[in-house]
Amino acid sequence: MNNEITGDRLIQRLKDLGQIGRDSKGRLLRLAASDEDKAGRDLLVKWMREADLKVEVDAIGNIFGTWGASKNTNDTHLIIGSHIDTVVDAGIYDGCYGVLSGIEVVSALKSQSFVPSRPLTVAAFTNEEGVRFTPDMMGSLVTAGGLSLEEALAAKSPDGKLLGAELKRIGYAGDRQPGFIKPFKYLEIHIEQGPILEKEKISIGAVEDLQGISWQEITIEGVANHAGTTPMTMRNDAGLAAARVITFLADQADRRTVATAGTIRFEPNAINIIPSKCVFTVDLRNPDEEKLKSAEVSLSNFLEKISSDYNVNISTQRLVRFQPVKFDDQIVDTILKKAAARNLSTKRMTSGAGHDAQMMARLCPSAMIFVPSVNGISHNPKEYTATQDLVNGANVLLDVVREVL
Amino acid sequence: MNNEITGDRLIQRLKDLGQIGRDSKGRLLRLAASDEDKAGRDLLVKWMREADLKVEVDAIGNIFGTWGASKNTNDTHLIIGSHIDTVVDAGIYDGCYGVLSGIEVVSALKSQSFVPSRPLTVAAFTNEEGVRFTPDMMGSLVTAGGLSLEEALAAKSPDGKLLGAELKRIGYAGDRQPGFIKPFKYLEIHIEQGPILEKEKISIGAVEDLQGISWQEITIEGVANHAGTTPMTMRNDAGLAAARVITFLADQADRRTVATAGTIRFEPNAINIIPSKCVFTVDLRNPDEEKLKSAEVSLSNFLEKISSDYNVNISTQRLVRFQPVKFDDQIVDTILKKAAARNLSTKRMTSGAGHDAQMMARLCPSAMIFVPSVNGISHNPKEYTATQDLVNGANVLLDVVREVL
Repeated sequence: MNNEITGDRLIQRLKDLGQIGRDSKGRLLRLAASDEDKAGRDLLVKWMREADLKVEVDAIGNIFGTWGASKNTNDTHLIIGSHIDTVVDAGIYDGCYGVLSGIEVVSALKSQSFVPSRPLTVAAFTNEEGVRFTPDMMGSLVTAGGLSLEEALAAKSPDGKLLGAELKRIGYAGDRQPGFIKPFKYLEIHIEQGPILEKEKISIGAVEDLQGISWQEITIEGVANHAGTTPMTMRNDAGLAAARVITFLADQADRRTVATAGTIRFEPNAINIIPSKCVFTVDLRNPDEEKLKSAEVSLSNFLEKISSDYNVNISTQRLVRFQPVKFDDQIVDTILKKAAARNLSTKRMTSGAGHDAQMMARLCPSAMIFVPSVNGISHNPKEYTATQDLVNGANVLLDVVREVL
Repeated sequence: MNNEITGDRLIQRLKDLGQIGRDSKGRLLRLAASDEDKAGRDLLVKWMREADLKVEVDAIGNIFGTWGASKNTNDTHLIIGSHIDTVVDAGIYDGCYGVLSGIEVVSALKSQSFVPSRPLTVAAFTNEEGVRFTPDMMGSLVTAGGLSLEEALAAKSPDGKLLGAELKRIGYAGDRQPGFIKPFKYLEIHIEQGPILEKEKISIGAVEDLQGISWQEITIEGVANHAGTTPMTMRNDAGLAAARVITFLADQADRRTVATAGTIRFEPNAINIIPSKCVFTVDLRNPDEEKLKSAEVSLSNFLEKISSDYNVNISTQRLVRFQPVKFDDQIVDTILKKAAARNLSTKRMTSGAGHDAQMMARLCPSAMIFVPSVNGISHNPKEYTATQDLVNGANVLLDVVREVL
């Protein structure tokens, strides 16, 4: 079978788009609705028009490039989507790979004189990263009806700018209503952003589900005392209590659960004073809602034990809670089959990160394709996926589209 | 036996001195060689002169009030000492109780027409707290020859002032050479600054030794990765590794060792990023040098294990290391005997904090008396010792002086 997408243009465009939005230190940042985001969007729209796609923008700034839009507005579209906004000091693949692969798929189908049975739309959703405006995955969330347009446009950046005003300013407050395109199915190809495929030397991940996420901030209040004069048995050490919780979480995590304490703060934070207070965060994820709940309950029980063991006061604040998302079995099977037909090694897998696909899965059958990330690094200039892996992924996507369309 | 020191004046003076150096928020602070320190010193000198003590100041600003200075300059003095400088937002007892009790002892002996066999000196050492100038216990350290006068006077405050110039400015750069008084024995009475006496309902602590102190800063370097996409087995989590070390230290600490992680910092300190770096401090103390060394070796071995278990890089930096100090057995026995004679409960104990007595112990037989601290709180406006405990302690000191002198 020929590799219909050679990848030369895809790789060049990833590099070109990756040059848009460099600051004086050379760091890549295209935060949602910023000047840099506008420059990236302008380039994307130019490429969509070159591919003869009909470009439409909705009121939350999502960009849609459609091939074969019919006159029958009841037609549902096959959508290939992702995002082109970035974090601060980003890599060049996250999101962009998915959107630009969509354009390559359209071009390849056209060059093969493929006749689609329904419209095919390439989508770039607004503010997936959520760095400048909260929440993340905002454009797809609004599309899925999970957040009202008004609320989304009223989101405020740390420097006091409203998203609605910023979208207008950069010329991407579109005239279409969010959700104006009715989706048939949704596909998203993305770098894994984790180490599994690379470590296991697998080319294609067929993403069958997406982890539920539970974020909590835990505050432990003990008593500040002299580190020299207070015997171990007479302490209420908030820092030690937190360390017990952090090691407990790691010991409890099973094969599919991940647990991370990413932030921590001691008070008074002095070498010779027993910490009176420790505030830290816990990020728990599991693709199974029952298991995620059970991990939360285990943590809660352990906090009670620690509160009693160390005579410290513990309070928790819920920061984020998403239920796991189940993707479409039939699409996942198609991904596995098409990859195998190209003699590529495959693996059913879980997405540990959030993606626009999880929002679109509320509307239509959806799934994702992952390709390896070197060292699992992402959100970092070291983010890298080998060219061959990028090209393999794009061609599997092409094959899946051809089957689904 | 009569209580020769009734304590009324002692308590009143503690309160009066505790009003000197209040800032606009009402916080007590008499940092070494500050205007507030000068005001406290002036009041102390006034009280010493009222007790008919001969006041002398040495070049590091230590104040000595001597009773019965003989013409024979080879006479060694019994010294009762402590300090009157404070931390920021201090309590009124730490240090001041020891110096003011010394004056009460002299007055009581005089009123009993006691004839001392040698001079008795009440000492207030400069900069015990070490808040404004480093190192702490500076006045007694210079007296003991552990730091040269020149180095001490060149100590610089955070706002760039030299201690030597500041002592001159406040009129306490004295004309005597440090060490001009030859010590016979040294006694110091102090609040415990820990919870043991209060918890065990004991009136008098006979301090037989002072813990050695080992401070290290530990830096663990792992790899920052996505908290959702990186399986637990593929992580190099610097924060988790640190939590393992902190719980290990607590599990290893035996009855006489204390271990404290008082400060901690994660990088990048983001909820959904596995910490790439954790910097934290370890404060280890033990009254036995061999056991302190052994605790340090255990820690070092455990760090090697953790470095290998989590594939993280660990480095340590030594911040402070003091060997334990052994006080004089005979004085400790006398303290126990004299307290028992007053029907006061007693306990041999270890000082977990540093005191001027540890420096003076380099020059002459020395020991300390501790009285209970409510809730073990110190370096805090909540620092409190009941009047009866203060009076009991001062009278035990009086009895010990009568025996030793």
